[in-house]
Amino acid sequence: MVQYHHLQYAYTRPDGTEVIEDHLVTLQPILIDGEWRPARRPISTMQPVNPSTKAPLDDTYPVSTEAEVEAIVLASYQAAQEMRSIPPDQIADFLDTYAARIETRAADVVEMAHTETGLPREPRLNSVELPRTTNQLRQAAAAARGRSWCHATMDTKLNIRSKYAPLGGAVVVFGPNNFPFAFNAVSGGDFAAAVAAGNPVIAKANPGHPGTTRLLAEAALDAARACEMPRALLQMVYHMSNEVGQQLVAHPLIGATGFTGSRKGGLQLKAAADAAGKPIYLEMSSVNPVVILPGALRERADKIADEFTASCTAGAGQFCTNPGLVILLEEDTSEAFLKITAERFRATPPGVLLGERSPGNLAGSIAGWQAHGAQIVVGGHALSDGGYRFENTLLRVSGKQFLESPEALQTEAFGATSLLVFAADAGELEQVIAYLDGSLTACLYTDTHGSDDALYNRIEPGLRAKVGRLLNDKMPTGVAVSPAMNHGGPYPASGHPVFTSVGIPAAMLRFSALHSYDNVRPHRLPPELQDPNPTGEMWRFMDGEWSQRDAVTGP
Amino acid sequence: MVQYHHLQYAYTRPDGTEVIEDHLVTLQPILIDGEWRPARRPISTMQPVNPSTKAPLDDTYPVSTEAEVEAIVLASYQAAQEMRSIPPDQIADFLDTYAARIETRAADVVEMAHTETGLPREPRLNSVELPRTTNQLRQAAAAARGRSWCHATMDTKLNIRSKYAPLGGAVVVFGPNNFPFAFNAVSGGDFAAAVAAGNPVIAKANPGHPGTTRLLAEAALDAARACEMPRALLQMVYHMSNEVGQQLVAHPLIGATGFTGSRKGGLQLKAAADAAGKPIYLEMSSVNPVVILPGALRERADKIADEFTASCTAGAGQFCTNPGLVILLEEDTSEAFLKITAERFRATPPGVLLGERSPGNLAGSIAGWQAHGAQIVVGGHALSDGGYRFENTLLRVSGKQFLESPEALQTEAFGATSLLVFAADAGELEQVIAYLDGSLTACLYTDTHGSDDALYNRIEPGLRAKVGRLLNDKMPTGVAVSPAMNHGGPYPASGHPVFTSVGIPAAMLRFSALHSYDNVRPHRLPPELQDPNPTGEMWRFMDGEWSQRDAVTGP
Repeated sequence: MVQYHHLQYAYTRPDGTEVIEDHLVTLQPILIDGEWRPARRPISTMQPVNPSTKAPLDDTYPVSTEAEVEAIVLASYQAAQEMRSIPPDQIADFLDTYAARIETRAADVVEMAHTETGLPREPRLNSVELPRTTNQLRQAAAAARGRSWCHATMDTKLNIRSKYAPLGGAVVVFGPNNFPFAFNAVSGGDFAAAVAAGNPVIAKANPGHPGTTRLLAEAALDAARACEMPRALLQMVYHMSNEVGQQLVAHPLIGATGFTGSRKGGLQLKAAADAAGKPIYLEMSSVNPVVILPGALRERADKIADEFTASCTAGAGQFCTNPGLVILLEEDTSEAFLKITAERFRATPPGVLLGERSPGNLAGSIAGWQAHGAQIVVGGHALSDGGYRFENTLLRVSGKQFLESPEALQTEAFGATSLLVFAADAGELEQVIAYLDGSLTACLYTDTHGSDDALYNRIEPGLRAKVGRLLNDKMPTGVAVSPAMNHGGPYPASGHPVFTSVGIPAAMLRFSALHSYDNVRPHRLPPELQDPNPTGEMWRFMDGEWSQRDAVTGP
Repeated sequence: MVQYHHLQYAYTRPDGTEVIEDHLVTLQPILIDGEWRPARRPISTMQPVNPSTKAPLDDTYPVSTEAEVEAIVLASYQAAQEMRSIPPDQIADFLDTYAARIETRAADVVEMAHTETGLPREPRLNSVELPRTTNQLRQAAAAARGRSWCHATMDTKLNIRSKYAPLGGAVVVFGPNNFPFAFNAVSGGDFAAAVAAGNPVIAKANPGHPGTTRLLAEAALDAARACEMPRALLQMVYHMSNEVGQQLVAHPLIGATGFTGSRKGGLQLKAAADAAGKPIYLEMSSVNPVVILPGALRERADKIADEFTASCTAGAGQFCTNPGLVILLEEDTSEAFLKITAERFRATPPGVLLGERSPGNLAGSIAGWQAHGAQIVVGGHALSDGGYRFENTLLRVSGKQFLESPEALQTEAFGATSLLVFAADAGELEQVIAYLDGSLTACLYTDTHGSDDALYNRIEPGLRAKVGRLLNDKMPTGVAVSPAMNHGGPYPASGHPVFTSVGIPAAMLRFSALHSYDNVRPHRLPPELQDPNPTGEMWRFMDGEWSQRDAVTGP
């Protein structure tokens, strides 16, 4: 099954030596219709790099062709039809079994992810992200089993009943580089939500961690076979051209797409999906403004500096919710805060970045900010040792300068980098907020004695309207898997303000279609809409009330 | 306030005489920021025609300019901010008051709508559509007052809470020509849902019934003043160029758009809104397939012919849910059904069509079908007397021919016109269904003794996936305002399969954004997310259960 492939590569060792090596490498197969199949010709390939050592890794992965993707779509369409007769409990069993298989293979998966992403094994990969991922799969299993997610609505007088139903075509998932487990296209939130809602998944692995994705997909396939799920429940390719990706999200036989990644890539896919009338849910980029009011700084500048530093440098700053913009009033306390924060940034060891291009991208974003008046306070340079790294970096800019170039100064810098905006007064602070783009989150820090409250009340409405999640006295990087979470927000943070990509059951809604049944004979209704409560505990909206009762109709 | 304007027009009387008249006409003002304002120069105008007499009506209406629309957007943005501090009860009072004002002015409104649309005063306008409209406004009022629509979700352990909130910018509503009250941009389902969810509305009247829209907008303005709502709660223009319309739906300060109308117009607006990342909800076109199985015809062909004729010819066939495609098996019973249906079509007096272009559009659609093999069974011609009318029309085509040109034969014919497809066998029937576009509805007629059940089970999944609402033994034209209704469906019936444009509270979801609050201090939360239940009866999803209780948290 594994193909062999000649490959020559050149790289620079950490000690500066140039190396050229000639290898007979294995080309990894892709997962099509329940089987690992060798790549079809013409074969082009990609190869990951260990970002901690800058050395290429052993395995080589194919870039899939249009013909392969077409075969995958056809198989997924068949699977979508088969899913109609799979009971929710079986879907839930699959998700639970998959979570358990991941735990069984945890050591391998963590090691591979560490090698491919440079993220620390502990606590990040093994004790934080992996449990989060299995927890997410189990929450999705519970939602599938409980069925309340489908929002069964019954008008017993008119005999009209509705529920959210699977899409009838696969969900395409594009995973990001920064969460090799929790947002992985084969194991993350979009995967869990799509499957729990009754859809098969076509996964596009992130090229940054193909080996991790392979191991997870193997576990998923094992679990799917054990639970007798459709063959093409999960299919996976490692890479494809932009053109093939655009065809995929616009394909008449797919249901919808979930994408987490760069704004550029997201907008290209969005244009293709929109033109075809296919739903696409995007989580693209976000600067996540943090507004710290003067009373809070007078009260606990040290504590806030600690929290901010930890949040901004965690995961080498490569979180969607990284606090990339801090807004302060021009006051002595703000200058003092900047000073102590700069010290902490300097004292925190920079983490390894995800990819070869990361340091250059960061340098580019920073140069862009500088061109619009931002000044470096600390950091600003790539590091040459210890893998792909970049100094923890803070820049500052005045509110006036920000208002002159609000767009340029909101370019995302994906790393441990943040821009502090010093507003001259409350009015300018309000203006800066008015010019913010849509973000996933915004944080407001205030004192505990009420001295900031008037200003809070003045600026909160403007900030609230810009973001999906508003926080108080807390940094944005923790994204709890809670039904009340919103990991979404106004464009361009996401593609649609109604939807969240994290949080069960709300995230499942994205991968459904509203199905109404009008005068349909009782035995033909889906079990969720028949009179008896199918689980005895499912919540249904019956004649204006949420209830777990059976419906009582008929003679 | 009313402007005067010179206008010359030429028209042909019903008796054939050509008439040229010179008039000093009044140019109707538009509703901007709480005032009726004269149109700005450069002024171009439009003038409606009475479709029952083909005579131009007295009033002339301005085509609004980009500058006017910009002024409207700015005022609406201000109103959206003011709406934040308007309590739900006040919004509900406005909606109730408005419904009552419409009833007070019912005689004028019905007369104007009859004159502008040719729809019968009784029962259609006065006893069906007007009560439906006021009922819809009152259901929206009840939803606003009850607050359960906002889906308050509380995770009391993690102190994360979320709800659907107003968009922070106006909802733009484009009303269709065929429901002068119930889908009117100033009084219909989109208006009611948008306002009940806490948003101001920018209404684009349909050029087919500007006078009706003016009378309704006057009633809305009266009610808004009586209830002390923001000045720009409702603003209204009569017409604008396509370019200005596209700018409007993409404007950074609007929230979202609801559009009901033609596929061509809808897709133009969708492209503009999509490119700007603005939500747009479209209800565009639908052929609404009706599948009648052999047992049903053996059992009750006469009754079904009656139901089908009534549904297809009601409102001169100008319903979004008009049954435009009937699918039958090639059998004697099907031929007999066609024969008796053709008699009924011939015997039913054709109604007046909405506009001057309606007969030509219908003739064009029919010619298109004929070019792909359809044969006229009855009707097929425009009528020269009694206003804009067209014969009730049936065409037939074989399943084989349908499968050769599925796209051309699914072009919507907006009138009392339907295409009957005769499938050779069950396999071909299945194929025809597989080639259907997304529709709002599909109907399945079967016998009551079970002889059709095997075929029902075979074809139902394919049909179910294509539509928003599936019916049994019932024609699609009744669209109840029920929480379980789905007046939506897969593209191109609508723009997104999750949403419905009819049905409170589900329709309100479209005009909202998901707002999550993470660790926000209790007194800063919106009342719906604070611990005490704000009404004592509001439904909230608390820690996994739907409940009307207060939340119990804290020490």
